[in-house]
This record gives sequence, C-alpha cells and structure tokens, in this order.
Amino acid sequence: MANVFAFGIGLATNNNAGDVLDCLFPAPLLHPDAELNEVLSAFKTGTSNITPEQARDANNRCDEKLFPAALLAADRPLTAVCLADDSPINSTAEAYLKLHLLSHRLTRPNTLNLDNIFAHLPNLAWTSEGPVEVHALQAALINARLAGRHLEVMSVDKFPKMVNYVMPSGVRIADASRIRLGAYLGEGTTVMHEGFVNFNAGAIGPNMVEGRISQGVTIDAGTDLGGSASTMGTLSGGGEITISLGKNCLIGANAGTGIPLGDRCTIEAGLYITAGSVISVVDEHGEAIRKVKARELAGGSDMLFIRNSQTGQVICRTNRQAIALNDSLHAHN
Amino acid sequence: MANVFAFGIGLATNNNAGDVLDCLFPAPLLHPDAELNEVLSAFKTGTSNITPEQARDANNRCDEKLFPAALLAADRPLTAVCLADDSPINSTAEAYLKLHLLSHRLTRPNTLNLDNIFAHLPNLAWTSEGPVEVHALQAALINARLAGRHLEVMSVDKFPKMVNYVMPSGVRIADASRIRLGAYLGEGTTVMHEGFVNFNAGAIGPNMVEGRISQGVTIDAGTDLGGSASTMGTLSGGGEITISLGKNCLIGANAGTGIPLGDRCTIEAGLYITAGSVISVVDEHGEAIRKVKARELAGGSDMLFIRNSQTGQVICRTNRQAIALNDSLHAHN
Amino acid sequence: MANVFAFGIGLATNNNAGDVLDCLFPAPLLHPDAELNEVLSAFKTGTSNITPEQARDANNRCDEKLFPAALLAADRPLTAVCLADDSPINSTAEAYLKLHLLSHRLTRPNTLNLDNIFAHLPNLAWTSEGPVEVHALQAALINARLAGRHLEVMSVDKFPKMVNYVMPSGVRIADASRIRLGAYLGEGTTVMHEGFVNFNAGAIGPNMVEGRISQGVTIDAGTDLGGSASTMGTLSGGGEITISLGKNCLIGANAGTGIPLGDRCTIEAGLYITAGSVISVVDEHGEAIRKVKARELAGGSDMLFIRNSQTGQVICRTNRQAIALNDSLHAHN
Repeated sequence: MANVFAFGIGLATNNNAGDVLDCLFPAPLLHPDAELNEVLSAFKTGTSNITPEQARDANNRCDEKLFPAALLAADRPLTAVCLADDSPINSTAEAYLKLHLLSHRLTRPNTLNLDNIFAHLPNLAWTSEGPVEVHALQAALINARLAGRHLEVMSVDKFPKMVNYVMPSGVRIADASRIRLGAYLGEGTTVMHEGFVNFNAGAIGPNMVEGRISQGVTIDAGTDLGGSASTMGTLSGGGEITISLGKNCLIGANAGTGIPLGDRCTIEAGLYITAGSVISVVDEHGEAIRKVKARELAGGSDMLFIRNSQTGQVICRTNRQAIALNDSLHAHN
Repeated sequence: MANVFAFGIGLATNNNAGDVLDCLFPAPLLHPDAELNEVLSAFKTGTSNITPEQARDANNRCDEKLFPAALLAADRPLTAVCLADDSPINSTAEAYLKLHLLSHRLTRPNTLNLDNIFAHLPNLAWTSEGPVEVHALQAALINARLAGRHLEVMSVDKFPKMVNYVMPSGVRIADASRIRLGAYLGEGTTVMHEGFVNFNAGAIGPNMVEGRISQGVTIDAGTDLGGSASTMGTLSGGGEITISLGKNCLIGANAGTGIPLGDRCTIEAGLYITAGSVISVVDEHGEAIRKVKARELAGGSDMLFIRNSQTGQVICRTNRQAIALNDSLHAHN
Repeated sequence: MANVFAFGIGLATNNNAGDVLDCLFPAPLLHPDAELNEVLSAFKTGTSNITPEQARDANNRCDEKLFPAALLAADRPLTAVCLADDSPINSTAEAYLKLHLLSHRLTRPNTLNLDNIFAHLPNLAWTSEGPVEVHALQAALINARLAGRHLEVMSVDKFPKMVNYVMPSGVRIADASRIRLGAYLGEGTTVMHEGFVNFNAGAIGPNMVEGRISQGVTIDAGTDLGGSASTMGTLSGGGEITISLGKNCLIGANAGTGIPLGDRCTIEAGLYITAGSVISVVDEHGEAIRKVKARELAGGSDMLFIRNSQTGQVICRTNRQAIALNDSLHAHN
C-alpha cells in the first residue's frame, strides 16, 4: 500500500439503518511516518467498521501509542477511516476526519480537498441527547416530554460545534455554538461571545476574535478582529481570491473587509471596505497620492483605513515604503 | 358550533398551582375543514384539560389521522385549545397555539391577532430540565448541585426557542437559541450563527439569513440578509408601516434598513438606510434625478443603495422604469 | 476582628486535587451590619472549608436568616469566603464571591477591586455535566460516548454564564450564554439575543440591551442599546476614562461609541463615533458652532449624532444650553 494520507479511528453515532450521523476522532493522523504506515497497512482504504481489538492491536504495534486509553477501552464497534490521498470526500466519516484534521491543527485552512463535504454531511438536530435526524425530531420531543425528560435542541445543521469533538490547547471560546467543527484555532486564541469561526477557516494564534471569520478566511498572529467585524469573500485584482488578514492587524468593531490585508493594517471601527470602494491613498506626509479601488490594495501591509468624518472620504494612510512594496507585489497580477 | 378558527392538542408543563408554563402542540390546525369541524365539536371553546382517550376518540373519528402516534400514546392529561375566532389571546396555551401556527407555516407573520401575548406568556428560566419559574430558579440551582446534577440555564424569557417545539422541513439553523417560537422559516431557509428571527417574523424561503429579522418583518424568496444586517420598524410615507423585503434582495453585512424594500434591491455592506436619510436618486445613465428622504422610496424595487466612498453621499441607483413604477405605487399614499 | 467587607457561603466544584473550579454563593453579603459582623466573627478571614453545621450555627444566630434553606440542608462541605477588605483577589472562591456581589446588585460595576481576577479564574470547559478541566475534556467526551451519554460543551472560558449562579429579579435574558457572571442587570432590564454584558459591566435598569456592553461600561436608566451596537474603552480629554451612557440615550442598531455620553443622547443607526472623530457641532437653529474631536464632547448630554447622508459630515446637533453645561463640565479637565 502507498503512503497513507490521513487516518483516524472514531466513535460514530449511527441511525437505525446503520448510516453514520457523526464521528468523533480523538487522535487523527495526517501524513503518518514510515513506522505508522506499516502499522496502518492492516486497515482497509476508505471507511470501515473495526473491532476494538483491531484498534488495540494497531496501538500495541507502535512505539508511540496511537490512541487515547479511553478509546481503546471501548467494547463496541469503532469506525476506521484510512485515506490514501486527498481526494474529494466520499463518506460522512471521511468528512468528519478532515474536519478533525483542521481543528486538531494538523493542517491549515484551505489545504484540504473538501469537495462534496455538504453532500456527505447529513443535516441533523444537535440535541442534549446527541444528534437526531430531522424527520425524527418531533417524535423525540414528544417522547421526551412523556417520559418526563427535557430534550434541548442546540442547532439544526450539517456541521456540529467544534468543542464537542476537539479541544485545542491554549484557547478560550466564550460561546461554543459559534465555532464549527473544522475551525482552526491556534494556540493563544480567545474567541469572545460575538466571535465566529466557520469550518475551514481560522485564527493562526495568538488572536483576539470578536468578529466573524467566514469560510476560507484566516487571520495571522497578533491580529485582532473587533466586535461584529465582518470578513467576506471577494474579487481582487480581477480574480477570485481568498480573504486573509496578516499579522498584527486591527479590524475595528462593526467594521469589515472585502479585501485581504497584509500585516499591520487597521480599519477603523464602523468602516466597511468593499473591493469596489474607491479609496484615496495618502502618504505619511498627508499628501494624496492616488485614488484606487480597494481591490488594488489587496494584500498590502501598513495601511490604515479611515473615513474622514467631515468629508465622508475613505482614506488609506500608508507610507511610501509600503506603497512601493505593494506595487511590486501586484506587478505580476 | 360555528367553524373552528384554530385547534390544537398539546403537552403542557404546569407549575405546582396548575398554571400552564408552556405547551407543545405537535399538530396544530388552522381553519379545519368541514369533516374536522364536526370532530372538533366535541371540544370546549377555549383552553381545557382533556384525557388521552378524548384525543384518541377524536383521532379515530377522522379519515386523515389528526395527531402523531406518540402524542396519542400519552397516559397523562392533555391540553386542548379550540378557538372560535382570531380574538386577542386569552391564555398561555392559546399564545403557544398561535406561535405554533406560525412556526408550522400554517399562516404567515402579521396575519394573526397576537394582542395580549406578552401578558399571557410567563417569564421563565429555560433550563436543561425544562422551564422553571424565575422565583424558583435559585433553589433549583442549589438543589441540583447538592444532588450532583448540573442545571444549565439557556435563557430567561417569555418566548422559548422554536426548535424545542417545531422542526420545519428543509431548514438549517446554526444556533437554535436565536429563533423564537413563532418564527416562520420557509422551506430552504438557512439561518447562520449570526442570524436571528423573532416571533411573528420570518423568511418565506428559500433564504440565507445571517442578519436580524425583527418582530413583524418578513423577507421574501431569494433574499439574502448579510451578517449582522439589521431590519427595523419605521415610519414610511407618513404612517407606520411594517418592514418587509421583497424577492432577491441583498442586504450586505453590517448594513441595515429602516424602510421596506421591493424586489431585487441591494444595500451595500456597512450602509444603514434610515427612513430619514436623504438619498440622491441616480438613473441608469448615472444622471442625478432628485433627492428624497428614504421613506419616499419605501417599497420600491430594483434599487441599489451605496455610499459614495469619496463624497460620503448616499446614492440610490435605479432605472427609469423602476422609478415610474415606484411613483405610481406611492401616488395614493 | 475588624468589620467584614464581604462574606459568602458557597457550594464549590472541586477537581481531584481539591482545587476550586467554581463556586455558587446563593446569598453573598457586602458590608454586613454590626449584628452580622458579630456572627461572622466565627469564620476565618479568607477562603476556608466549613461543615454545614457551621453554616447552620451562623444562620441560627441571626434574627434575619442568612442563607437559603436548600443550602443549609447540605450534607457536604461548604466553602466560606470572608474578606476583611477589598484587596486584590487571592483565590478562585474570592473571585467568584466578587462576581456574585455584582450580579446580586450589591454593588455597581467599577466599585470592586478585581485585580488578579484572570489569574485566579481557571479556564474551564463548561459542559452539560458542569465544569471540566480543559486537559480532561477529551477523555470526558470519549467516556460519555462510550457510556451512551451526550456531553455538550457550552463554552471554554474563565467566566461562566451569570444565570447558572444568579437570577436577578425583573430581568429577561434571551440568550444566557451572552451574560457573564459579574454582570450587573438592574430591575427592568431586557437583554435581547444580540445583547451582551461582560463581567464588571452592566445596565442599571430599566434598559433594553440589544448591543454589547463591554467590561467596565455601564448604561443608566431608560437607555436603549440597539442591535449589535458597540461600546468601547476610549481616551477622553487626554486621559483614559471608563465609558458610560447616561439616562434615556438611544444608540442605534449597528452604531457604536468610543466616548462616554451623558443623558438624552442619540447616535443614529449605523454611525460609529470614535474618540478621534472630528465632529461638527450644530446648535438648535442649525448653525454650525465649532468642530471638535469627539473626545471633547465626552460626557455631554442632549446630543444627537448623525452623519449627513449627502455630505458625509458627522454632525452633533445640540442646544446652546447643553453646550454651555458641557463646556463647564470640561473646564477643569
């Protein structure tokens, strides 16, 4: 067998028909080394059901133990996913494995092939008793009441919340319902109550996140996303590019950006920069240099965006050095 | 008996004094047909306690079965609400029935008489063990701890979350705590984490809802409410009118509207149109036509609102045809 | 012993090492009177473990009963915190006691010494089974699944939600996850789903809160914070001052303020006033008076902030009387 791309042994929830509803992978692997590849050759490629003995056998064959003790103590069937390469997603368990890889910080957003993920994630009611199929929810609500129990429904979604599956170290998350499984939260990240991180998106850490990190968006170390600040997909320089914010940026409260930014950029509170906004670029001496569409500034560093509160003009204050860098950056666009 | 306006058999939670705290109606009826009217004549008008036998009897007398099997299997008292007409709300159970009618999509927002609803909905702590009266919460918190249980309080409110009662088909709700019972979510609606829908408000579907749909507000098919976008009540044309958004509108992230809009309208990200905003109307050739208060544009279609990022001027770009239509629309205001 | 500054008997959750993870104080005391001081002299200064008998003894020695019956019925160790003065926080239980004092409305935000609070609050996973240490969460998730239970994680944070500990009277809280323990919610406060109140911050009541009240910020009676409205710390008049809003202010939806405001101030929807915004002050006759940085208007009353939608100019409409008052207010800054 060729090298394994990714592997995990998980605890799945199945419906009565045996379909996987969700799957917890406590110790997923990406690009396992030669020794592990040898051990994993015992598993079928794709998704399969295995016995706990098979998991324990695999674990015993490694110098470094593979799986948490609690998982190995299971006396119920487990789910193994063994991917030979990064192909489009082919099963619910595969989708969960890839989302775990991101939240376990084994790879960064926008590095995995997530094609077909929506097709393979069932829309479920996430309840205080675990995932329930949507068509079965009403009966479950009635039955819980008749039995004197309260059934609480947290969400109805294809994606569950991250922390019911993965707890990255060094992170605070004030409202766990706003971080989807598949989010990447780097060490030292604090997500306040208004913060949100979608799957395949994230904060490299350390970061303060009080705004919304949309699918595909990343923010780099030291960047602060203010309360209710928005990040959106955009066209830049004519093509579709993924939004990202570099290091040490500050996006003010209720502000937003439709263009990616480099390092040390600031958008003042309440100002939304869209790709089509016409921006007056001003140098370090306050001298107006040119007017450009914001998309032409995409990826630039050392830019401060404000709206002049007396003229309504949106200004980008920067310095000649940053402008020069930025020009060369875009010379080949 | 005259025709029944609305009917439901529910599972109530009662306090020690027998007062209804909440009520789940799995299969509410609005304007039942002649056959059902005959069957329902067995029930008292208003709110009453019935035995499960009475519910089973009613169910057996219909060709089309009335109630979910799980409900009919109950061996505890049930709550029947039978409304002769759409009068002001007269009991807690009635309030719950009307909220269910909306969330079950049996009628649209702003079609039911909801007078007195606040007076008849008790303010409750919604907990992991069901509704608890506010005055009793502290003792419940202590007792749970002493018994080694954790009591989680989700909200303290007159309205519960919708999906603990009603699960409409074809809907995703990323954070269930933001959809109140009484919300109308049409087929194909996705409410993201930042989305919110109040009671007697809704998305006709299909819609993407990442902003806030205030009480009384509706958005029609194909309309997209961006992240943290705001809808508010407003004065328009001199009178108080209910906000609504027509089909295929796009309200950008962090934007907002204080006027109703017709079809195919866009408000750019970060721009808030209040009824009193003075707007420069520009035709399809870029020619300025007139300046009006936004409320004069209320209900118009094919309008694009932006703020010129160099002059601060708020502009409505539209076309001559849309303007003509809009003028005639308002000719009789 | 000198007079007691604050006192509480609580129910703590401890980890296996005996460390306090959290503590519920159902009846905290601030500045107890002479009789209570006498009774409390039986307790050690600082944090100590006591028997339920000791709590019952103390309770029996007071004319006015000190503690809820449910607490006194405990047959497990209790935690007593007795503070001689308002020193920096010295234990987890002390931190919890001070947060309870605020949420029990015994004192207002910004009146307690909260130094070291972050150091003494452990970062915990707040779950449906109570607080779990972050390092132990993954095993807990696996074990719950293997045992057929669902473990729901609400947040991973140093601060828990208020209403799992304190239920102030006359309050509605639409989403309890957005109110931290240590928030002050006065009688008559409604916090809608988009509202947020940090610890050591609050609404004096009555208030409508649909926006975010940051740490240290307070809003006074009758003030309405619109949907997603933002309050932030700021520099004013050259020094760092705490933001507060006076009585009967209205901060519009998606608006924000970086300066404190007095009474009867309005910021229109979508407008963010930062301390550095240049503002055109206009009197009651529409006459422009002067241009100032917003920080010079800090604390003023009777101000209406709008952005002229045709010129982009941010204007403060006020009246000569308000301006005069405000000038004298700042004369000694």
